[in-house]
Amino acid sequence: MAVGEAGARKRSPGRRKKGAKASTADLLLDATSSLMVERNSADVTFADIAEHSGLNAALIRYHFGSKAGLFMALLERDAGGTFGNLEALVSADMPADQKLRHHVFGVIKTYWRYPYMNRLVAALSLESDSEAARFIAERFTLTLADAQRRILEQGEREGLFRPIDPMMFYFSVIGSCDHLFNARHSLKFAFGVEDIDDDLRCRYSEHVAGILLESVMV
Amino acid sequence: MAVGEAGARKRSPGRRKKGAKASTADLLLDATSSLMVERNSADVTFADIAEHSGLNAALIRYHFGSKAGLFMALLERDAGGTFGNLEALVSADMPADQKLRHHVFGVIKTYWRYPYMNRLVAALSLESDSEAARFIAERFTLTLADAQRRILEQGEREGLFRPIDPMMFYFSVIGSCDHLFNARHSLKFAFGVEDIDDDLRCRYSEHVAGILLESVMV
Repeated sequence: MAVGEAGARKRSPGRRKKGAKASTADLLLDATSSLMVERNSADVTFADIAEHSGLNAALIRYHFGSKAGLFMALLERDAGGTFGNLEALVSADMPADQKLRHHVFGVIKTYWRYPYMNRLVAALSLESDSEAARFIAERFTLTLADAQRRILEQGEREGLFRPIDPMMFYFSVIGSCDHLFNARHSLKFAFGVEDIDDDLRCRYSEHVAGILLESVMV
Repeated sequence: MAVGEAGARKRSPGRRKKGAKASTADLLLDATSSLMVERNSADVTFADIAEHSGLNAALIRYHFGSKAGLFMALLERDAGGTFGNLEALVSADMPADQKLRHHVFGVIKTYWRYPYMNRLVAALSLESDSEAARFIAERFTLTLADAQRRILEQGEREGLFRPIDPMMFYFSVIGSCDHLFNARHSLKFAFGVEDIDDDLRCRYSEHVAGILLESVMV
């Protein structure tokens, strides 16, 4: 059953620094991440993760408490890790239209790297306790929505953008960025595209950023 | 356990004509639909549906063969029922910008009526046989994408629209239309909005149609 410690070490080290030794918690997150990519689903059990990582399932409970805890830690690692860049972008000395363009490229790159992100968010938001849903909303939605609001306000001050409702804007931007990755079956069966390569990622980013800039600019 | 036939009859008759007697298959679809709305999830079992409809679970297998069969029938009823209007819109004698606006309002209205639509599509696309994923792609994605392509081509011919890649357009339009309904937890916890009422639905439709029209029009 278990693939053994050696098998676990072969897997991608995710966002760890080169040469840093992976902790048990990191190995469990890596195994969860690669299983979700493989299955295109957040439907993974502790037993699956144990088998894939070669680690005992009890360690998952020890490190993360519950499946919700594990999922929150994964979301924090994957998306939370990009929020430093987002804050730097929003406070940079740069016109608002360029910021909006970079923001769209950044969001799409995150979905491209972690295509299970939305399944993860959906799975968390269905947890019976609402703590997980609140965590997502406060840590992720509000962080993104607040960054967008500040870019939109800057654009208005600079006379570049027309007034836009930031809540409406949030749902239309994130929905556009996400759907290519969320609906891979459509991409495959309706358009014959098996994989989202770097070229498609860039062209889609240009398309979404183009639509948004055309529409918000005065 | 079972709520009884009377309980089943009390439920909304969905898209049936007034006065028409609901068939067993209709009652099973109604029960599945109302359970998915209640749970904001496509995670329902035959036992749940049996309890909710007051009908025997064996009838689900008799009428639909499998869970995938049931889900495909529900998708066909909810979304497939709108495709006659879509075809009428595309072939109508009307400028392309008005068609695009009506199309966005139509897609958003469908998500508003059947907020579980995307969970249903995601659940179907994960079925082990790819028949379900192919069904979605051919019946839904291609129908929508083809209608959009024809509207975009008309707009170009009329000198109203700039050239747009229809595949990119498809994913950005459907993603925008869907996300408000797909991410209700964000709406609730990050923006304090509990329900999507008719007013919010209309304002969101105006927002998305506005963004798209601003960006595609010459």
